[in-house]
Amino acid sequence: MKLMDIFGTLKKDMDFIERQLYRSIEGDEELLNETSLHLLKAGGKRLRPIFVLLGGKFGTYDLNRLQYVAVPLELIHSASLVHDDVIDDAGTRRGKPTVKAKWDNKIAMYTGDYIYAKALMLATRLPDPEVHQILSKALVQMSIGEMEQIRDFFNTEQSVRHYLLRIRRKTALLIAISCQLGAVVAGASPQISSLLYRYGYNIGMAFQIRDDLLDLCGTEKSIGKPPGSDMRQGNITIPVIYTLEHRELRKPLLEAIDGIRKGDGADHSSEAINIIKSGPGIAQAEQLAEVFTAKAMAALDQLPESKARTHLKEIALFVNKRSY
Amino acid sequence: MKLMDIFGTLKKDMDFIERQLYRSIEGDEELLNETSLHLLKAGGKRLRPIFVLLGGKFGTYDLNRLQYVAVPLELIHSASLVHDDVIDDAGTRRGKPTVKAKWDNKIAMYTGDYIYAKALMLATRLPDPEVHQILSKALVQMSIGEMEQIRDFFNTEQSVRHYLLRIRRKTALLIAISCQLGAVVAGASPQISSLLYRYGYNIGMAFQIRDDLLDLCGTEKSIGKPPGSDMRQGNITIPVIYTLEHRELRKPLLEAIDGIRKGDGADHSSEAINIIKSGPGIAQAEQLAEVFTAKAMAALDQLPESKARTHLKEIALFVNKRSY
Repeated sequence: MKLMDIFGTLKKDMDFIERQLYRSIEGDEELLNETSLHLLKAGGKRLRPIFVLLGGKFGTYDLNRLQYVAVPLELIHSASLVHDDVIDDAGTRRGKPTVKAKWDNKIAMYTGDYIYAKALMLATRLPDPEVHQILSKALVQMSIGEMEQIRDFFNTEQSVRHYLLRIRRKTALLIAISCQLGAVVAGASPQISSLLYRYGYNIGMAFQIRDDLLDLCGTEKSIGKPPGSDMRQGNITIPVIYTLEHRELRKPLLEAIDGIRKGDGADHSSEAINIIKSGPGIAQAEQLAEVFTAKAMAALDQLPESKARTHLKEIALFVNKRSY
Repeated sequence: MKLMDIFGTLKKDMDFIERQLYRSIEGDEELLNETSLHLLKAGGKRLRPIFVLLGGKFGTYDLNRLQYVAVPLELIHSASLVHDDVIDDAGTRRGKPTVKAKWDNKIAMYTGDYIYAKALMLATRLPDPEVHQILSKALVQMSIGEMEQIRDFFNTEQSVRHYLLRIRRKTALLIAISCQLGAVVAGASPQISSLLYRYGYNIGMAFQIRDDLLDLCGTEKSIGKPPGSDMRQGNITIPVIYTLEHRELRKPLLEAIDGIRKGDGADHSSEAINIIKSGPGIAQAEQLAEVFTAKAMAALDQLPESKARTHLKEIALFVNKRSY
């Protein structure tokens, strides 16, 4: 997943953002430096900063201003991951031990709190009230999405609509505002910012659906954590929902999920995954991801033609092809 | 602790703030509403909003603007309490079960995240960048303070200075900026805002020292949670530090704390508390609280005479007399 290879033009600016990311968590308190650094070093695609910079290309591109949303957005994403790992009881992420595994849940919780706060503090370097309104609203929605996810564990009665609302909050919104804020900070027109938002929102939806597919069909090597972890924690994703709609597969899948919930020691999650793979759920989910990708492309088509627009198109294709 | 009885003048405005507090957490997601409501209903003195309103009296008092810092500051305080309870493994707070006890740690974590985000979102109703800078800086410091507290559990080698730095971040800063932001939002002069900050900072320090004393010397009825909980979790507070400086008490106290840490089932925390009460540590801590109260009073004396100033004086006396 070497997204950066796609476009050399951004390389220098992304290196700057990377340095600023590290600088942002330097020097406050030893343990927090260590845990935060551990988190940043684990890598990640830095997708949100890339979206910010590309969004900025649709207005007056000023890296010095853009950094104050690019860095915060990546920090917010990282903070949400640390808190997520506490919930998921995750031992590894991106192939490395999680903060909660290397230290503990409490330290992971405060590391997240610290990184959230740092992100917001950095963003206040920009005086534009609109930026702060967009950011804080997204944070509220994200936390609602996280809570919905916990509440919906093992809820086999949820609809596709319900799932979409949840991943909208959990994932798509932050990607949407990354594209939007780049444009807003660069002083692009409201029409352009809103098209970029629409692009980001749809790419974010496609991205999360692909992520959910990867968790079922990926290998530990390709996804950096053991596959099937959604299944094991009762996180009912779209391929599961589609499979449950299937008359013959519904009953055995419900039984497997119930087995996971009861935790009798047997490997019910492999059982569930095999049932899902035997039916049309995977292909249906792939199709849904493609619908969102197409919507993202449609939003792009309304933007003025430019190198940045081409890059956004490449990212959309990349997201839609994440391999497993 | 009926602070509100002290001054009828603020009653109507504080009722408005109370309603806005409840409104702020309405309607998003069922479980979050429930957990957040539970937290707000558990009460509390609403000290931070009172400070905001009193701070606002030193400029152009506008409740409609002041609410957007008064409500966020109380929300931030509440969010920090939910996360605190996760760390402390606290079963009760203010006489009621904590969110983590009634639900679980994960739900408490996301309830905190949600309330933090809501607080920041509300504050963005004010366009003043200074407000957001002050708020987010304080959030960073608070999270550092929380991490320091975890790191320092059972650290019997810490100095008075170290303790003071920690409670500064953990408690005093948020109270300081409550007073300051009231004045800033009301457009008071920088000199007045900074005197109010100084008052709030010193009152906050006195308040935390009194709180630490209450945990050792209070009753379950007077403090709303079982006394000695700091001791049991290894939170080394100022009366402990003073007692450890005492030649004859150091060794038995170290042994009792070591016993708590090892958790052999014996009641080493009562033992530790008895040792502390037998020495001069309690009285020394009381004296230190009085030093901070006096500093707060000195800051007040430089403010123009007014009803608000009298109220701030009354609060300082109230804090300094919290009974146990």
